Amino acid sequence: MDTQVAIIGGGPAGLLLGQLLQRAGIGTVILERQSREHVLGRIRAGVLEQGLVGLMRQAGCGARLQAEGFAHSGATISYAEQSFRIDFEALTGKPVMVYGQTEVTRDLYDARDRAGAPIHFGVGDVVIDGADGDAPTVSFTEDGTQRTLRCDYVAGCDGFHGVSRRTIPETQRREYEKVYPFGWLGVLSRTRPVHHELIYANAPRGFALCSMRNEGLSRYYVQCRLDDTPDSWSDADFWEELKRRIPPEAAEALVTGPAIEKSIAPLRSFVCEPMSWGRLFLCGDAAHIVPPTGAKGLNAAAADVHYLSRALIARYARGDETLLRRYSEDALARVWKTERFSWWFSGLLHRFPDQSGFEYKMQLAELDMLRTSRAAQALMAENYVGLPY
Amino acid sequence: MDTQVAIIGGGPAGLLLGQLLQRAGIGTVILERQSREHVLGRIRAGVLEQGLVGLMRQAGCGARLQAEGFAHSGATISYAEQSFRIDFEALTGKPVMVYGQTEVTRDLYDARDRAGAPIHFGVGDVVIDGADGDAPTVSFTEDGTQRTLRCDYVAGCDGFHGVSRRTIPETQRREYEKVYPFGWLGVLSRTRPVHHELIYANAPRGFALCSMRNEGLSRYYVQCRLDDTPDSWSDADFWEELKRRIPPEAAEALVTGPAIEKSIAPLRSFVCEPMSWGRLFLCGDAAHIVPPTGAKGLNAAAADVHYLSRALIARYARGDETLLRRYSEDALARVWKTERFSWWFSGLLHRFPDQSGFEYKMQLAELDMLRTSRAAQALMAENYVGLPY
Repeated sequence: MDTQVAIIGGGPAGLLLGQLLQRAGIGTVILERQSREHVLGRIRAGVLEQGLVGLMRQAGCGARLQAEGFAHSGATISYAEQSFRIDFEALTGKPVMVYGQTEVTRDLYDARDRAGAPIHFGVGDVVIDGADGDAPTVSFTEDGTQRTLRCDYVAGCDGFHGVSRRTIPETQRREYEKVYPFGWLGVLSRTRPVHHELIYANAPRGFALCSMRNEGLSRYYVQCRLDDTPDSWSDADFWEELKRRIPPEAAEALVTGPAIEKSIAPLRSFVCEPMSWGRLFLCGDAAHIVPPTGAKGLNAAAADVHYLSRALIARYARGDETLLRRYSEDALARVWKTERFSWWFSGLLHRFPDQSGFEYKMQLAELDMLRTSRAAQALMAENYVGLPY
Repeated sequence: MDTQVAIIGGGPAGLLLGQLLQRAGIGTVILERQSREHVLGRIRAGVLEQGLVGLMRQAGCGARLQAEGFAHSGATISYAEQSFRIDFEALTGKPVMVYGQTEVTRDLYDARDRAGAPIHFGVGDVVIDGADGDAPTVSFTEDGTQRTLRCDYVAGCDGFHGVSRRTIPETQRREYEKVYPFGWLGVLSRTRPVHHELIYANAPRGFALCSMRNEGLSRYYVQCRLDDTPDSWSDADFWEELKRRIPPEAAEALVTGPAIEKSIAPLRSFVCEPMSWGRLFLCGDAAHIVPPTGAKGLNAAAADVHYLSRALIARYARGDETLLRRYSEDALARVWKTERFSWWFSGLLHRFPDQSGFEYKMQLAELDMLRTSRAAQALMAENYVGLPY
């Protein structure tokens, strides 16, 4: 059982990488711990940068996204009883695309099915061996059978808790981390979104976000305590708290309904350096995590996939390993920019439990600046729509 | 002994206010605790925004500044073995003016002498009474004699430790503060500046700044510990430490010489709200302090003087008290923007004792952004050259 590139992880990063490589004639095998249904059941963000939209097109998966996605040319930020809109498209020439991560994943599964490329679900006990040599192998169990995959390269797209990052010896990597002292309570409901664009709110009672998946599916969040549980919030509690944090006209217009999904996510910034070790290359959450503010998680993974697919294609097309050797450096340069934006935007919009009066005033002054300075809006917009690859 | 406006404090804020009011035909008396020589002996920053340059002109004190000041159209920032220049003038159309605060003060004393307007040095035991009524008085001792000044209004330009702010009852004001865990060790030397513009450095060993007063007078700073004393740093220690923190080409070109002044300043952000109480109006350090990074202290005081002189002139010219009633609000709106910039620029360039690896990476990412993003440079530049009044 051999392949050219073994891809650990069948989430959107692994699938997108697989699709880009397949189309370049490079053989891939994808190993996924969960079932397809489980992966498709995960609720994630849904704001796509143009870079990811372009990669989906390049992967032959751009049609449904183009037809069903919603281009958003701006977003609203509210704070201290005022709100303002940042017009990304006027400032950068680019909109963002609202299209659920689940839909991205579904489109990529469909494309892989059409290509007839191998994907193994429900695999366990994955072990990567020999990544620091010339002939790496990935061994795993499938249906109770021990199997081994020989390959040229291993792409670690298996998320924060995956085996890939931990395969790099501890002495060979350094990890950077910040854990935020609050969580996001998210609710998905089959209701009409309160606004046609996103609303980010820094309210005295904490952060809130009004987002959506489509015209009939809304996604809302409120900042919550880290020790809260979804069960400790009734639907009624959630809607009431949301209304208290968003602009009055939005609270008035809000259509509520039963939560079809309710979950709490912690907020974390995390980066592992380097992002490669021998013939093992990390992509996405396996190497870095951002807090969800600004919806950069999937987009950051897509940027890694861009750098890695480009490097592997150059290697197989021309035998040129330059980009592969530079992969970690190239990917990290953009990763740190994305980490900075997500950290800054999170710091701007949340209430911190130990925040001093001066620190709160700094948030307000920064929000005032963002409301009034074109340069501040341009800087925010160029990060929000996505930095170039 | 009566006047229209009693000005507590004969530093640059009080003097500039006095001069603007005198020229509008409004009578002022300035009370200064120290001697003129003491005030002129204080070494302060020397980077003036165009707003302050305009006020000096308006006060009839612009000639020497114009002739002897140096217009700087940019500055260099160095970090992590690279450096880049921000071209303020290309980005905003405005340069900053390098001209020592001591020279500003001297020009204002000379103008007040020419105007024959009263200024009392060496006054003590200043007490402001009745500021919440219609007939405030300022009592003080001068040459051992108790005196009382009746006035329409009191301008509190007496700095952070002055009596003016403390005259506002504690229940009527709120103070915001951040103390930074390091100081600035500054050296003045009669040497040629190492560079024709300022160099700000975020070095592994800490912040450094190469500044100047004129072609033969340099001002250098290094971040130091809060428990350091000027005596614990020999001249040789200082120059060696400075060289380690600035770009290699600057270290090589540096001309060293005896320190003619050596001092350590703490870094503090501080704001008192409101900035007025009845007929008492605070200006400058009496109401707010910024850390010295970005040289905003004197410039922030000048903005207050702009708002207060405008309001008092409207009051005396037309009996219109609208601007006086709005003074605190108008002044604070700009103060908080200046506080934000000074806090951000300080946070960007210093090494913090408890800084995590992630936080250091965020500094580097922000510096990378400032190096590469025109929007980031434009935002920095519009704050550095000074926000409009």
